[in-house]
Amino acid sequence: VATNPTQTPTLLRASAAALEPPTYDDVLAAADRLAPIIGPTPLLRSRALDARVGGRIFLKAECLQYTGSFKFRGAYNRLAQLDEGERQAGVVAFSSGNHAQGVAAASALLGMKSVIVMPRDAPAAKIDATRGYGAEVVLYDRWTESREAIAGAIASERGATLVPPFDDPRIIAGQGTVGLEIGRQAERFGEELDAVYVPASGGGLIAGVALALAEDSPGTAIYVAEPAGFDDHRCSLEAGHRVENAPGATSICDALLAPTPGEITFEINCRLLAGGVAVSDDEVKRAVAYAARTLKIVLEPGGAAALAALLAGKIDAQGKAVALVLSGGNIDPALLAECVRAYPEP
Amino acid sequence: VATNPTQTPTLLRASAAALEPPTYDDVLAAADRLAPIIGPTPLLRSRALDARVGGRIFLKAECLQYTGSFKFRGAYNRLAQLDEGERQAGVVAFSSGNHAQGVAAASALLGMKSVIVMPRDAPAAKIDATRGYGAEVVLYDRWTESREAIAGAIASERGATLVPPFDDPRIIAGQGTVGLEIGRQAERFGEELDAVYVPASGGGLIAGVALALAEDSPGTAIYVAEPAGFDDHRCSLEAGHRVENAPGATSICDALLAPTPGEITFEINCRLLAGGVAVSDDEVKRAVAYAARTLKIVLEPGGAAALAALLAGKIDAQGKAVALVLSGGNIDPALLAECVRAYPEP
Repeated sequence: VATNPTQTPTLLRASAAALEPPTYDDVLAAADRLAPIIGPTPLLRSRALDARVGGRIFLKAECLQYTGSFKFRGAYNRLAQLDEGERQAGVVAFSSGNHAQGVAAASALLGMKSVIVMPRDAPAAKIDATRGYGAEVVLYDRWTESREAIAGAIASERGATLVPPFDDPRIIAGQGTVGLEIGRQAERFGEELDAVYVPASGGGLIAGVALALAEDSPGTAIYVAEPAGFDDHRCSLEAGHRVENAPGATSICDALLAPTPGEITFEINCRLLAGGVAVSDDEVKRAVAYAARTLKIVLEPGGAAALAALLAGKIDAQGKAVALVLSGGNIDPALLAECVRAYPEP
Repeated sequence: VATNPTQTPTLLRASAAALEPPTYDDVLAAADRLAPIIGPTPLLRSRALDARVGGRIFLKAECLQYTGSFKFRGAYNRLAQLDEGERQAGVVAFSSGNHAQGVAAASALLGMKSVIVMPRDAPAAKIDATRGYGAEVVLYDRWTESREAIAGAIASERGATLVPPFDDPRIIAGQGTVGLEIGRQAERFGEELDAVYVPASGGGLIAGVALALAEDSPGTAIYVAEPAGFDDHRCSLEAGHRVENAPGATSICDALLAPTPGEITFEINCRLLAGGVAVSDDEVKRAVAYAARTLKIVLEPGGAAALAALLAGKIDAQGKAVALVLSGGNIDPALLAECVRAYPEP
């Protein structure tokens, strides 16, 4: 359980020159860039889940994505657009895990060096995996050190490009390929989706998904799924402007702890989202257990947020076609074991 | 851990009238019957796994199949061919789990009653799931009672059709749709597979897969993956005739404990298989853990047999395109937790 760290917003954003929000065409271009590298992840069905909630549920299994989460999409789309000089200097990123793995893996594929600044208390599985992709990992203490200062120093010392986790048009466009795939796959099932639920931390994934579906499936309502206490998107949508989470909240969703929506992401999300739901740690653990037991897939807590909302009765799916983005599966084995042991019953 | 029970072969077989082995066309007809009911399961890739073994590995994820294993395919294909009178009398089957769920779910979809005779010590998850599909479950003690006698009495009392687990041409043809999908999906990846590894208990799945690929991908070698001590297919292939496993063996692969290959299945398998590999319980547990940790999918022990062989270095995948059938995911949550706890490292 990690609390909400204080962040310096500037280093979470792309440089000023690139602050224009991405367009649907940018998402299509990202899909072209990614096509030779990764295939689409499956859009899974479960008769058991359909029967339980009385609707037609479509599960976008980004846990099966390369690096175990959707983050590879945005990272690769960003890094593939660096010029030759930038590639030689390498990249630096800070992340508690999934963005780290995405940047590390994308760097390796593009023949670039990467330095990832990670909190010492990040899940061991994520730190190990990031090193496994060939990145240099620099650990910091999230209570006494500033990751922004560490990453900034590395970037300026090496001339490396800092890759922000979400507030970057090319990152958002890359994540948007999830939305393109959902639209096309649902069409192949003969469905027009009533709603899509997407987890959010800084909001890059949901902004990209919303961009894609606003064009491809304009009748689909897009909702955000967040941990209780970190439901800054839901609160910001209601307030009409970006608000911060109250300090002191805790959540097991280590991938969903950003303190406030991104600037660029919120510019998109405030136009295109329909609302949001928030889930408790207990609801998330039940969803992780349900996914393993019934769906036969492994989700990390943050990746299970939308499923948790559905199983907890917070999504009205009765008679509807609803897609859930299961955004990642990088859970520590011990926590997975704890969830399936704690909730052995459907 | 269960030991090898003595079985009366006659009730494991289809009636004499239907003993002709199925053909490739029967597999195509099964695919047509199944098409409105289930979509293809994904053929997954993993860069991490490819890098580890130095080959291109294709994972046929039947754990994501309806009922959690491939068994639904054969059961539905068998039951859909019952006539009106047979449908009204219902079906009976005995099974330690996956066949039970397949028959129960297929019966429910076709509006038929099903009685499933299951050992009292079968995984609780499988018994619960079988009941959940609407079947009447009759439990028996595998040490003191005969499941054949119980099932036979129910069948004759109710006029119900006994559905054998593997030694039936329509069951084999249904399982063969796994092979059709593998061939088509590999083609979409631009690959001609060098080899496919398939787990076997009575051999229905591998016989069907071999029938399909002998036609669609004749250059692909088909190998069987079995638990050590239950490697009756491998031994039978070497002997040139059906041999029985030695008594007293134990395995955690509760789905792969048939004492000897089926008659019809072996008629196909002795012509079409290239050989086999056997895996230990420890190798299987490591594969279950690897699947959850790295692939983000949940496998039951039997479903992990082929992956276990690959990870243990028993399959030479260097520079090759190799498909593994991951045949099921119905593992007891406690065992899944035990595996991921016991093997937290890649």
